[in-house]
Amino acid sequence: MSETWVYDFEHADKGNKALLGGKGANLANMTQLGLPVPPGFTITTEACNAYNAAGTLLETIWQQVCHAVNQLEKKTGKSFAGSGDPLLVSVRSGAKFSMPGMMDTILNLGLNDNAVEVLTQKTGNPRFARDSYRRLIQTFADVAMGVDIRLFENELIAIRGERQDYEISAEELDTLIERYKGIYQKATGSSFPQDGFEQLRLSVIAVFKSWNNPRARTYRRENAIPDDIGTACNVQAMVFGNMGMTSGTGVCFSRNPATGAKGVFGEFLINAQGEDVVAGIRTPEHIDQLAQEMPEVAKQLFDTIERLEHHFRDMQDIEFTVEEGKLYMLQTRSGKRTGAAAVNIAVDMVEEGLVGVEQALMMVEPQHINQLLHPQIDMSQAIPEPLDSSGLPASPGAAVGRIVIDSHEAVKICEADPKAKLILVREETTPDDIDGMIACQGIVTARGGMTSHAAVVARGMGKPCIASAPSLVIDEHKGSITIGGKQFNSGDWISMDGGRGTVYEGELKLKQAEFTGKVGKLLGWADAARRLKVRANADNPRDSRQAVEFGAEGIGLTRTEHMFFEPERLPHVRAMILSDTEEERRKHLDSIFEFQKEDFKGIFREMTGKPVTIRLLDPPLHEFLPHDEQEINDLINEVFGGVTDEKRSEVKARIEAMRESNPMLGFRGCRLGIIYPEINEMQVRAIIAAAIEARREGSESIPEIMVPLIGAKSELAKVEPVLRRVASETMESYGEKIDYLFGTMIEVPRAAVTADEIAELAEFFSFGTNDLTQMGMGVSRDDAQRFLGHYVNMKIYRDDPFQSLDQEGIGKLVEMACKLGRQARPKIKLGVCGEHGGDPDSIDFFHRAGLDYVSCSPFRVPIARLAAAQAEIRSRGASAAAVSSTA
Amino acid sequence: MSETWVYDFEHADKGNKALLGGKGANLANMTQLGLPVPPGFTITTEACNAYNAAGTLLETIWQQVCHAVNQLEKKTGKSFAGSGDPLLVSVRSGAKFSMPGMMDTILNLGLNDNAVEVLTQKTGNPRFARDSYRRLIQTFADVAMGVDIRLFENELIAIRGERQDYEISAEELDTLIERYKGIYQKATGSSFPQDGFEQLRLSVIAVFKSWNNPRARTYRRENAIPDDIGTACNVQAMVFGNMGMTSGTGVCFSRNPATGAKGVFGEFLINAQGEDVVAGIRTPEHIDQLAQEMPEVAKQLFDTIERLEHHFRDMQDIEFTVEEGKLYMLQTRSGKRTGAAAVNIAVDMVEEGLVGVEQALMMVEPQHINQLLHPQIDMSQAIPEPLDSSGLPASPGAAVGRIVIDSHEAVKICEADPKAKLILVREETTPDDIDGMIACQGIVTARGGMTSHAAVVARGMGKPCIASAPSLVIDEHKGSITIGGKQFNSGDWISMDGGRGTVYEGELKLKQAEFTGKVGKLLGWADAARRLKVRANADNPRDSRQAVEFGAEGIGLTRTEHMFFEPERLPHVRAMILSDTEEERRKHLDSIFEFQKEDFKGIFREMTGKPVTIRLLDPPLHEFLPHDEQEINDLINEVFGGVTDEKRSEVKARIEAMRESNPMLGFRGCRLGIIYPEINEMQVRAIIAAAIEARREGSESIPEIMVPLIGAKSELAKVEPVLRRVASETMESYGEKIDYLFGTMIEVPRAAVTADEIAELAEFFSFGTNDLTQMGMGVSRDDAQRFLGHYVNMKIYRDDPFQSLDQEGIGKLVEMACKLGRQARPKIKLGVCGEHGGDPDSIDFFHRAGLDYVSCSPFRVPIARLAAAQAEIRSRGASAAAVSSTA
Repeated sequence: MSETWVYDFEHADKGNKALLGGKGANLANMTQLGLPVPPGFTITTEACNAYNAAGTLLETIWQQVCHAVNQLEKKTGKSFAGSGDPLLVSVRSGAKFSMPGMMDTILNLGLNDNAVEVLTQKTGNPRFARDSYRRLIQTFADVAMGVDIRLFENELIAIRGERQDYEISAEELDTLIERYKGIYQKATGSSFPQDGFEQLRLSVIAVFKSWNNPRARTYRRENAIPDDIGTACNVQAMVFGNMGMTSGTGVCFSRNPATGAKGVFGEFLINAQGEDVVAGIRTPEHIDQLAQEMPEVAKQLFDTIERLEHHFRDMQDIEFTVEEGKLYMLQTRSGKRTGAAAVNIAVDMVEEGLVGVEQALMMVEPQHINQLLHPQIDMSQAIPEPLDSSGLPASPGAAVGRIVIDSHEAVKICEADPKAKLILVREETTPDDIDGMIACQGIVTARGGMTSHAAVVARGMGKPCIASAPSLVIDEHKGSITIGGKQFNSGDWISMDGGRGTVYEGELKLKQAEFTGKVGKLLGWADAARRLKVRANADNPRDSRQAVEFGAEGIGLTRTEHMFFEPERLPHVRAMILSDTEEERRKHLDSIFEFQKEDFKGIFREMTGKPVTIRLLDPPLHEFLPHDEQEINDLINEVFGGVTDEKRSEVKARIEAMRESNPMLGFRGCRLGIIYPEINEMQVRAIIAAAIEARREGSESIPEIMVPLIGAKSELAKVEPVLRRVASETMESYGEKIDYLFGTMIEVPRAAVTADEIAELAEFFSFGTNDLTQMGMGVSRDDAQRFLGHYVNMKIYRDDPFQSLDQEGIGKLVEMACKLGRQARPKIKLGVCGEHGGDPDSIDFFHRAGLDYVSCSPFRVPIARLAAAQAEIRSRGASAAAVSSTA
Repeated sequence: MSETWVYDFEHADKGNKALLGGKGANLANMTQLGLPVPPGFTITTEACNAYNAAGTLLETIWQQVCHAVNQLEKKTGKSFAGSGDPLLVSVRSGAKFSMPGMMDTILNLGLNDNAVEVLTQKTGNPRFARDSYRRLIQTFADVAMGVDIRLFENELIAIRGERQDYEISAEELDTLIERYKGIYQKATGSSFPQDGFEQLRLSVIAVFKSWNNPRARTYRRENAIPDDIGTACNVQAMVFGNMGMTSGTGVCFSRNPATGAKGVFGEFLINAQGEDVVAGIRTPEHIDQLAQEMPEVAKQLFDTIERLEHHFRDMQDIEFTVEEGKLYMLQTRSGKRTGAAAVNIAVDMVEEGLVGVEQALMMVEPQHINQLLHPQIDMSQAIPEPLDSSGLPASPGAAVGRIVIDSHEAVKICEADPKAKLILVREETTPDDIDGMIACQGIVTARGGMTSHAAVVARGMGKPCIASAPSLVIDEHKGSITIGGKQFNSGDWISMDGGRGTVYEGELKLKQAEFTGKVGKLLGWADAARRLKVRANADNPRDSRQAVEFGAEGIGLTRTEHMFFEPERLPHVRAMILSDTEEERRKHLDSIFEFQKEDFKGIFREMTGKPVTIRLLDPPLHEFLPHDEQEINDLINEVFGGVTDEKRSEVKARIEAMRESNPMLGFRGCRLGIIYPEINEMQVRAIIAAAIEARREGSESIPEIMVPLIGAKSELAKVEPVLRRVASETMESYGEKIDYLFGTMIEVPRAAVTADEIAELAEFFSFGTNDLTQMGMGVSRDDAQRFLGHYVNMKIYRDDPFQSLDQEGIGKLVEMACKLGRQARPKIKLGVCGEHGGDPDSIDFFHRAGLDYVSCSPFRVPIARLAAAQAEIRSRGASAAAVSSTA
């Protein structure tokens, strides 16, 4: 163990977060860059461990702290415990990892009855000096000594009454300080320490003790942070922006965080502290104004900002204070930005030579691209306060329209005026609302989660949606809604941002998505950088076209069951399901054949030259059957040409008999085609026929036929010969050949562990990570709401495993299947078509696992293109690091 | 390739099944043992391959066949193609593996218009000679020449009319032969060959061709038999037992196959062929009678049988024929036997020094033990023909009782007369029948499979059950049943054998199960031989006692949910589920605590000195709630003390909200205890308190606490500290300590692949192979009936994976978990508590996977003891083989 327990910011090893904590290391970093940082020092994490081991602050540590304070006095020319210009300091905890539960910051340490008078003289502001003092007493008592903070708040309220804090006079503050001292005395048995060193000693001990408070322990356990790493303690000289007209404070960005435009962007207040900005009492001035008021300081600030941006090679978010004409940098960090800004900054910085293409690609978060895919609220206008900002951001993009609370009404309005702009506002949506959802620009619901009907359907449609807006109440009777406490009628204009979950009153201006210009350039770089191909999941020509526009390189999943639900086909499908013989089933399947062929042909046309993976029928057949009385009657009429009591009870009994207790694990997927091979035969015939016919029209068709829910090679061995035979027969009937691939989904855990056997027959694997997650974790997505949220909150699951792949568990199955599959068939094509194919973290995993492509919904294709590039760049970095560490 | 294509039985290499086929090798084996086997020869599998490669029978092969026939003529002194005593032969296919789909046997080859007359003279039986001839024509035409057999059958029916075959006269047979020849001529374009060599040549070609017929190809593909191994063809001289009073035929066993008693057991018929025995026209005589009628032959036969038993060291099943005073052995093989016989023979043979203990253990099938566990039909009485013998043997054992077709009626009868013996006969059973099933001796149902309600419950109760008796029709109205076409009324006596699926009229005598004597000795040997421990699954003291009696060495699974269903507890359980706050839940759980403690105490008492694994609550809570109107009203009354419309709709809405689309993957298992830790707390408190209290009474309690449905270490990390704390608190409250283990089920695939992490916290794993199979294969056991049967029939699954572990798939997950678990915790205890724990094949797998114990239902414990010993013996054999092959 080192004998040095305390390091000042100038000499600390800025890379050693384990010793200095994150905050201490950052302060050292800024200081050593030559920035004007208020001086200070860090008491190390080892000192914390020593304290907690010994149960007392070692004398050697305390001596080093005192010495460091003396140095601080010398640097600042102020006096900590003496009678001159008072040195005030802040005390902050700071562990290696950012960690809630640790001790709060204490400001203005060093103030006492004497120093408060000196401060009053220096600032000419008795109210400020006294308010700082009473806050010190209160905070010190609370966080360092554990006195109940409510005791202080009660006194404050008693004096303040209905007024604001800043309306309390200096005299009243004197009274309050006396009462606070009384409370302190009563609660701790001692008077509030007038000696700054005593204040400091108790504060440092409190920081070290807080390492072991219950909240911190729980947090560490849940986040697997070791208990023995300790926290550091940072002591820093206070600076004041409210020392008069040559002082001030401000916040700025090195570029515009909303648009990315070049030039410093921010605001400041003369003669003010940071908390004044937060309190919103005075309106801050634009940062450009600083050049007028303090030209020297402004020049120094702007130069510093430019240096920082060059140093960190990223847009910076900076806090500064000017004390009597002297500039202090309090903080600098990468600035948060909108999607548009992120893209513009990244591309600009490449052009400015500040960063390379790889670095630029890493500067844009995939979620940023998501914002750009949909119309956005134009940030150049004045944005009002949202009515409600706590709804779930269920589907991104902004929309503006008139309120409509009834889906049929929405359809009617659109029929009358196809250009009508509507926002559908519902308690929640059901399949009956589909037409209404199509008719409107966006959807807001009062209930339902991220996977509710509204959310899922809206994301599929690429429409903005907010689910569970907490303040929304709908009065269907009156045709009005209340949101954010304000009432609106149907027909009133509102605006919404589905990416943020915010609803606004009135008609805001929107900005359309575009993939040209800088976004186009960035995505072009991504395409050049990535190894993973990106495909889309699309079930029809419209979605396929959309996918190609967004840059998809193929279709990774065409579900054929949606086609079965179309109104002109459903009666045939139902009749087929209720058939008693193979012959009858074949007859009804023949009626569907032409439809399916045309479906596939439309998709092949859009996807010319790109592979199209078509999955054979997957869902349990009972999903196609009705369950309510009227629909059953209709079905019997359609299928048997008339309803009798006998027929009705027979059909009802059959529908009942097809119900399953766990349909997820029931009679579905390849099991259908094994028991009823005629279904597969019809579908394969339609695929091959469509591919040939589309080619005759000039499209290059590349079909890939995919069998769902395979768990064993023996299943594939049943299905394959049938498919191969039908494909050959179909080609013969056309007198031409077409190449196709035959493969399988890997979505059953057993398939993953026997993938070597399956790969003997399958030419490709497509991971169905949704079902693999359901079966592998034993979690039904439809039923998980009762515990999944708790699991994520309790950190039992890192994320919702249906949003982001469970890499440590389900990921093992994926890796195993890739390895085994490649063992048996080295050139096997590997992809993923579960929803994880559009999730950036999961994409990074799929890249590392060695997949050939990911497939996701068309609207996520651009996100996936960027995420795939980042995965590649990250793995290059990792392998470069591995090379250099072995060198 | 060898230049020898044909081997006679005396000189063939009897060990070379690849060359001679299984049948050829066996005939060679018997011949070379010096047994009087009718002479013959084998045409090799290589000849078959040569034929199929060339598309024609090579001249060199045919010459060797002709030469072998000439040798046969010399050995027998008969003439094949000449005019003397005719040499007749049989032709049989025979591949290395027994293989359906190959060509049927052709008998009496060599008969023609001339030879049939010589045969008539020799046998003095013109009917026999002509019948043999017409059969030859028909069989030869069908199997060798592919003529439609129906053409012959139509002619036969035209002549026979309503009579039996044997009532057709010799003259009618002459007519039939002429007509058969006509059919043959018309269908093949040639006349039926009179030349024996031509008959033989065409037959041999037909055998070789049949190797590639579609049924054989399919069978090979499904059973992974290579296509290039070919079949051999066996040609053997016919012998006739119907040559007069010094001829005869018989079947016998070297010991009694029903009881195992020493001494030859069998029957014979003088002047008869094998088919006469089958036709049942004459009643055969007891084998002892042979000594009276043909003392020389009898002595030779008995000596031969003794030699055979010594040679094969197992009880033999023998077919013999005497032709004119000369004994011929036609077949010998290991004899099928009852469970009682198997045990007696195995133990006797050890005592006789014929076999060692290991060999004896391998001679008894685990299923044999199953027969002995339950009362059996006493085989010493005369057993009538069964009324129905095709029901599913759903639960073993025999029962005798009066028919009752209503469960309430059964309960009433038993209340009036507790000694009443009843057989419950139902369409199928539901949970409403439980009391009726308890009241009766056995259950017969008309519907349902091996996993139907009746089957599962009956096996659990250890009661005999037949499911799906095909001829059973129940007329509830009349209170009568029809079975095997015969009508019975309620109250009539029937007998049943649930191990065989047979129902008998009247009251048969039963024999009680016993585990003393030879069974006890055998199981003792098994216990000494095995490495795997055997535990039982038991939920109450009664089952625990039964388990100990059957030799269980602990409880591997106590389900606690059954305890929740007891009538005095269910209201508290339901109130707990409907509670809004943790406080309310704790209150209701406290009401259940004492009951649970007593439950556990009862089990600890029975299991003194043996470990008891108790699983914390597992099923979804909605399983405890009612769904019908009346029950819901009762519930509201119980819980809220009165029913209002509002309350009812509230409670119904809550019950509805708890429904799950896939309850199997829903809110159950450890998820319950994580969201509601108070449930786990109550159960752990009850377990530890019960263990201490039972110890105070003198029992040695060894509790093992098991958490179900763990999928991730992070779940266990939530549960463990709660359990450890509660356990410590409970011990403190008693002022004494007790050792306990803390472990988890491995039943979620994710748990298997992350078992190393889980083993950091779990002190034992118990594989829940039922759920692991469901999730790992994506098959819901409740819903699988629509395809599982087809899957087994189509050989997609080797077995029903819920009966016998899917070793190639789910087994991989088990092996992985064992390996990873031991990596992380070398001394981790590994067991299995799924139903596979009682299946011999699965036990063999678990032995090889390195588990420490299996746990199964009490009634399967003796089976598991034997199976575990066999697994050990088999693996010793395997490792000995491995050693010798490397030596």
